[in-house]
Amino acid sequence: MCSIIKLLNWDSSVSPIFLWRKPKNKILKISMNRFKLICSAFLILVSLSIHGQEEDKDALFIKSIYDYTLTEGDCYQWLYDMTTQIGGRLAGSMGADRSVEFTKDILDTLGVDKVWLQECEVPHWVRGEPEMVKIVNGKELKAVALGGSIGTGKEGLTAEVIEVLELDELEKLGESKIKGKIVFFNRPMDPTQIRTFNAYGGAVDQRVWGAARAVKFGAVGVLVRSMSLRQDNVPHTGSMVYDEGGEKIPGLAISTNDANHLSNELKKGNVEVYMRNTSMNLPSKTSHSVIAEIKGSEFPEEIILVGGHLDSWDIGAGAHDDGAGCVHSMQVIQTLIDLNYKPKRTLRCVLFMNEENGLKGGLAYADSSNTKNEFHIAAIESDAGGFTPRGFSCDAENEVFAHYFRQILEWQNLLEPYGLYFTKGGSGADISPLKSQKGILIGFRPDSQRYFDYHHTSIDNIQAVNKRELELGAAAITSLVYLIDKNGLTSEEN
Amino acid sequence: MCSIIKLLNWDSSVSPIFLWRKPKNKILKISMNRFKLICSAFLILVSLSIHGQEEDKDALFIKSIYDYTLTEGDCYQWLYDMTTQIGGRLAGSMGADRSVEFTKDILDTLGVDKVWLQECEVPHWVRGEPEMVKIVNGKELKAVALGGSIGTGKEGLTAEVIEVLELDELEKLGESKIKGKIVFFNRPMDPTQIRTFNAYGGAVDQRVWGAARAVKFGAVGVLVRSMSLRQDNVPHTGSMVYDEGGEKIPGLAISTNDANHLSNELKKGNVEVYMRNTSMNLPSKTSHSVIAEIKGSEFPEEIILVGGHLDSWDIGAGAHDDGAGCVHSMQVIQTLIDLNYKPKRTLRCVLFMNEENGLKGGLAYADSSNTKNEFHIAAIESDAGGFTPRGFSCDAENEVFAHYFRQILEWQNLLEPYGLYFTKGGSGADISPLKSQKGILIGFRPDSQRYFDYHHTSIDNIQAVNKRELELGAAAITSLVYLIDKNGLTSEEN
Repeated sequence: MCSIIKLLNWDSSVSPIFLWRKPKNKILKISMNRFKLICSAFLILVSLSIHGQEEDKDALFIKSIYDYTLTEGDCYQWLYDMTTQIGGRLAGSMGADRSVEFTKDILDTLGVDKVWLQECEVPHWVRGEPEMVKIVNGKELKAVALGGSIGTGKEGLTAEVIEVLELDELEKLGESKIKGKIVFFNRPMDPTQIRTFNAYGGAVDQRVWGAARAVKFGAVGVLVRSMSLRQDNVPHTGSMVYDEGGEKIPGLAISTNDANHLSNELKKGNVEVYMRNTSMNLPSKTSHSVIAEIKGSEFPEEIILVGGHLDSWDIGAGAHDDGAGCVHSMQVIQTLIDLNYKPKRTLRCVLFMNEENGLKGGLAYADSSNTKNEFHIAAIESDAGGFTPRGFSCDAENEVFAHYFRQILEWQNLLEPYGLYFTKGGSGADISPLKSQKGILIGFRPDSQRYFDYHHTSIDNIQAVNKRELELGAAAITSLVYLIDKNGLTSEEN
Repeated sequence: MCSIIKLLNWDSSVSPIFLWRKPKNKILKISMNRFKLICSAFLILVSLSIHGQEEDKDALFIKSIYDYTLTEGDCYQWLYDMTTQIGGRLAGSMGADRSVEFTKDILDTLGVDKVWLQECEVPHWVRGEPEMVKIVNGKELKAVALGGSIGTGKEGLTAEVIEVLELDELEKLGESKIKGKIVFFNRPMDPTQIRTFNAYGGAVDQRVWGAARAVKFGAVGVLVRSMSLRQDNVPHTGSMVYDEGGEKIPGLAISTNDANHLSNELKKGNVEVYMRNTSMNLPSKTSHSVIAEIKGSEFPEEIILVGGHLDSWDIGAGAHDDGAGCVHSMQVIQTLIDLNYKPKRTLRCVLFMNEENGLKGGLAYADSSNTKNEFHIAAIESDAGGFTPRGFSCDAENEVFAHYFRQILEWQNLLEPYGLYFTKGGSGADISPLKSQKGILIGFRPDSQRYFDYHHTSIDNIQAVNKRELELGAAAITSLVYLIDKNGLTSEEN
């Protein structure tokens, strides 16, 4: 579109409050733009307190949050540095350790009251040499070992392949059909699901429990169709789980194109596959989540948490999963401090360790918090990528959910101009253990369409992230944190 | 995100009605999947007519539209072929001619009542040799001529540069400061606009009217900062307009990185730039819009139009602008026919020629329609890219707008599950001349964040388009066409 006639047709736009060009010089930036932003935010607050229009005040402050984030926010640069200088950050790896230092160093500069590391004991799985999966007398298949998988041994293994679409098919086939074979789980994600996370949820049982189920019938290995809605050559890793004390067989994912190829070969007759991986589980290691806190000025005992997870899979740079969630959370802190906002409630940014294959950071955080009798009035997790925001999904214990949700919905008008809507649903894995504290749990929900194109792959890197989309996510979360902090939430009927 | 704990947390999902795996074999595809889809759609309609629940019926038919589009729709393949086999399609070019044949051939196979070409006389501008813009004793700048620009002559021209941010600055500077110079328009698009089209609308005056205004003060050429919110090396072309009978000087766009560089150089002192382009305006040519029609079974005199524009700028493949809108519109037809839906109203798919630099297709279409006393009850244009749908923007003559909009809003509940919302605002350039017929004009509104990363550039190609996002757009438009056709709209108070 371009036509000049169309120029007469633009939707009306709010003119920007603040000067928004970003000077090259960092000192000038602080002395000029940031100063103007602080002054403007201050003037808005003063002028509006005269008029006493609380909703207008909120609307203007939210506008200042967006203006700041889109012009001065550093979240994209942080993500750029983390993904290009560190890369993959699987728990127990050197990358994970470096990301703890990297984010702590940044948080230390933002002007919070306190930054600290919280210990957790994490599994330590290593991938080993590049995987090899090849049809005997046929094509090599693009493959990656699933996280937690044992290796095949240096020699690899060769076996006939049997394709199944559902875990329950294994029982019908029984040992007579499965013993000694490689089970190939090939049920695609359902493309008719509008929210792609639902399609993932409907297919990922194959990856997580496929090997544990197949070994019971004598399978020697497992190949899983990658969890992706695209047809391409990119294999997707992700966690798998063995039964406690049960027998173990290796599990690898192959690309969707290669899954189709293998399936087509199987239609023609018996197919043997050679597979080899040298991954292994090493003794657990000590790692850390990173926590930054601003103490609340009026209700310090009410904690608002915003977080993501620091760890990522090893084969990519974890830009969307979940580098985006980490820098979103850090951006909330930077924005509110730079706009000179003094939270009434205690604000915590938590970058959890080991969400991908153990959740040890989230569990350690909740344990520690419960031991101290803390109360999280709200916990917000960003762990669905750095795409354009669509809203927030809210969760809480049954007895308090309706009260919270009713109050949250009162802010719908303020957030609708930014394309944000509230829904009921899940929140985030790391914050889910906090549910028993009876605050509200909130999952940030960006557009989900492209998430599984990159999820757990070698291409989840900074090139997959759009700067504006990332910044809009940070601004959306900051706005909600502001509304909760300023207006509070109660679990009582009122 | 991945953690197993999270698996317990998935939002509940509607299970798919239809088998959705797409067989490789085209014959099998028609005989199996399409047959199942038609049967399912038929059974839904029969079973629901018994219950008489109109809204449930609509909801289920909309679900079948999405299921079909996401599994059987050919829109992505059409766009792939058009952008890779034809590429750029500027009015008057061979690419434009080929795209007319290409889309007519596809529409001919879909089973509509009639496909025809509608003539229009289009401008014929050609770019000539690759452009050259270079700071004298300095850096070469990434540049493209603006559409409609005259050339500098084979020798090029060298002149001192003066930077301005607003067209009105020209008058303040006057001939004494401007005469003999190249005017460099460098006002960036405003990043604080949430909808990027508003940022475009706030900056594009420089590109469109910059040269016509600057020449009045003796400028010899114009350089314009590319219309983009990104900092990169990609120059963006687009239309420019000279005053009728006025003097003409060449106009070129430079990349945002190079605009910053040039601006920084100017801060140090005088800068001379050499610029050269050999573009020229040739005599106008006859071209065509492509129209396909299904005659309405009950109200054939009420026309529902769905369209996009076939032409694109020459330097890229016009995948988002507006190949996406064309294949969206064609997909509406394919989906409704394959679901065996018989429209009550006349349904037209119109692929307009020459939106980018003349709108001659849209004007010819409206002229012809008015001459025949036709009535477009609704016209929907998709010309904002193939990104995830966010909703529709509605427009109409003042006296009828409120009636239409009230009826449209009654469908909000049906479309909300797909993330679609209705707003008031502009519609589309090609359909805007139909406003006087007093139907409703509707612009499809996908997510706008990435649109101007690609707009009018060499990188607006198929790699910039996500298959699912494109399909979701087509399904969104089809659903709205279905609702309008089935339920009708009235301009009367009722």
